[in-house]
Amino acid sequence: MSANKELIENLFKANRRSVARSISIVENDNSDSSALLKKIHSNIGQAYRIGITGPPGAGKSTITNQLTKHYRKLNKKVGIIAVDPTSPFTGGALLGDRIRMNEIGIDEGVFIRSMATRGSLGGLSKKAIDASDVLDAAGFDLIILETVGVGQSELDIAQAADTTIVVLVPESGDSVQAMKAGLMEIADFFVLNKSDRPGSEQAIASLQTILMMKDHDEKTWMPKIIKTIASENKGILEIAGEIERHKTFMNENNFFIQKRESQTKIRIKEIVESKIRKQIWSESGEKFLNSSLEKVVLGDLSPYYIAEEIILDFINRNN
Amino acid sequence: MSANKELIENLFKANRRSVARSISIVENDNSDSSALLKKIHSNIGQAYRIGITGPPGAGKSTITNQLTKHYRKLNKKVGIIAVDPTSPFTGGALLGDRIRMNEIGIDEGVFIRSMATRGSLGGLSKKAIDASDVLDAAGFDLIILETVGVGQSELDIAQAADTTIVVLVPESGDSVQAMKAGLMEIADFFVLNKSDRPGSEQAIASLQTILMMKDHDEKTWMPKIIKTIASENKGILEIAGEIERHKTFMNENNFFIQKRESQTKIRIKEIVESKIRKQIWSESGEKFLNSSLEKVVLGDLSPYYIAEEIILDFINRNN
Repeated sequence: MSANKELIENLFKANRRSVARSISIVENDNSDSSALLKKIHSNIGQAYRIGITGPPGAGKSTITNQLTKHYRKLNKKVGIIAVDPTSPFTGGALLGDRIRMNEIGIDEGVFIRSMATRGSLGGLSKKAIDASDVLDAAGFDLIILETVGVGQSELDIAQAADTTIVVLVPESGDSVQAMKAGLMEIADFFVLNKSDRPGSEQAIASLQTILMMKDHDEKTWMPKIIKTIASENKGILEIAGEIERHKTFMNENNFFIQKRESQTKIRIKEIVESKIRKQIWSESGEKFLNSSLEKVVLGDLSPYYIAEEIILDFINRNN
Repeated sequence: MSANKELIENLFKANRRSVARSISIVENDNSDSSALLKKIHSNIGQAYRIGITGPPGAGKSTITNQLTKHYRKLNKKVGIIAVDPTSPFTGGALLGDRIRMNEIGIDEGVFIRSMATRGSLGGLSKKAIDASDVLDAAGFDLIILETVGVGQSELDIAQAADTTIVVLVPESGDSVQAMKAGLMEIADFFVLNKSDRPGSEQAIASLQTILMMKDHDEKTWMPKIIKTIASENKGILEIAGEIERHKTFMNENNFFIQKRESQTKIRIKEIVESKIRKQIWSESGEKFLNSSLEKVVLGDLSPYYIAEEIILDFINRNN
C-alpha cells in the first residue's frame, strides 16, 4: 500500500475503503505513512476533536455511542478512534466493538476504528492521533478519541483533543482523593456516569472540593461536573451542550492556538522518537545487540556500555 | 548525589540509606545513574527475581506481603519494587503502601520502594529494573517486582523476572477468553486469588482450556494454576513451592541463560532509547521544536517535516 494520488483523492471524498486503507497505512508507521500524512496536512484542521477518558467500566463507549447518535441527528459526520490497551484483561474492546457495530456502525456517516495494542512496539498515541488526522482530512465533522485512562500514552491521546472529558462513576469516589494533578488538568469537564448509583453525591462533592482548589478567575475555564445515566440516554444533551460551551469559550479567548501548539509539541516529539527507534533497530543495531547479549549476561559488560556503543554506531551510520 | 565510592561500598554492605539513595539515583536516570549501574554490574546476579502482575484489585500486594513474611521466616532478605501507574484512578499504591509499611516495612530484612509514575517521562520499566539491580547488588536474596498489568511497560517489568506470576480473580473469568498471547506467554504460573468467591471453578476451567491449546511436550514448562485466599494466608506456601519448582526446572534445563539473554535485549533497547531521548531534547532540539510550532499549527509545515529536521540536527550535533 502506498500513499498514491488516487488513494488521497478518494480519501478527500470520504470514500470508506480509502479511509480504512489510509488508517492502516498510518498504523504501519513507515515511510508511506509519513508521506501520506505530509500530503494531507494542509487539508486538516476542520474537524472538532473530543477526547473521552476514564477508568475501565466507567461507560465511555456507551457515552461515545449516545453522543454519536446525537450528532448524527444534527447531520454531523462522526469518526471514532477507540483505544483500549487493557483489553486483554477486560475484554472491553472486543465486546464494546460488537455492541457498537450493531448500534451505529452500519451508519454511513459514522466511521469506527479500534486500536487495542498490547504487544505493539509503542507509539500508540502517535498512531491514534495520525488516524484522527486521516478522519479530519476525510471531512468528518467530529472525531471522538476514546481511551482508557491508565497510562501516559492514553493521557497523551486525550490531550490531543479540543475538548477532553473525564468520565467517572460513583464507585470512583474514594479514588478521587488520590487523583494527581495530571488527570485534573486534562479534564475540560467531568461526567459522573451511572449517577443513580449510591455514592453519587459524595463523589460530586469530593470532585468539587478538588476543583475549588485550583486557581481561577473570570478568564479561566472552570470544569463542570455533569451527571449522566448513559445507558438510559440521560445527560447526553448536557454533554453535547458543555462541549459547545467549551468550544465557544476557547474560541472567544483565542485559547485554541495555545492548546494546539502544546499538542503539536507532544506530537512532534513522539514522531521523532518513533522514527529514531525504527532507524536504530533496523539492521546493524539489532545485529550488534544480539552479538553482545552473552557478554552482558555473563557479567563481563554492563548493559549501559553496550547501549552507548549502539548509539555511537547509529550516529556514525548516519553520516 | 553522585555514584561515589563510599556510597557503593555502603550499598554492598546493604546499608539502608545507601540502598535508598542508590535507587533515587537510578530513578533520576542521568549520567550518575549510568555510572552507578556500570560500577555495580559485576556484583549482581545473585538475587532471585519474582514478577507479580495482574489486573487492579486482584490482590497482588496482599500476596507480595504474605510471600515476604514466608521468606522472612526462612531468613531470606526481600526487596520489593511496587509499580502502579494506575494509582491516580484507584488509589492503590497509596493505600497498599500504608498497609504494607505497617505489616512488613519495619523489618530490617525487607526493603520496599514504590514507583507510581503517572506524568513521568516514561522509562518506567527501565527504572524498575535498574532499581532491582541495586537491590541485587545490596545482597537481597529475593526481589519481588509487583506491577499492575495494564500496559506494555508493566509487562516488560514482569518479564524481567526469573519467575513471573499472573494473579487473577474469579471475576476475571469472562475476560480470560479475551486474553491475548502476550499475557499467556509471560505467566510461569497463575494464581487464582479470592478463590472462595463464586465463579472460581469456571475461571480455572477456562484458563486450563487456553493453556491446553499451547504446544507442549516433556521439555516444556507447563504453567499451573494455584488457588489462594491471600487475605487468609491460604495458598501462600503453594506459591512459594511453585516458584521453587520453576526455578529448579529452569536450572536443570539451562533455560535461565536464554531467558536472561532475551531480558537483557529488552533492557538494552530501553536504555538506548532513554539515552537518545535525553540527548535529543536537551537543548537545541527543544529550542528548534518550540520555534517551529506556529508554522505547524497554521498548516504551513507538516509535523513530519519538522521531525525529520530535528533528527538531522541531532545527528549533526553528535559529530
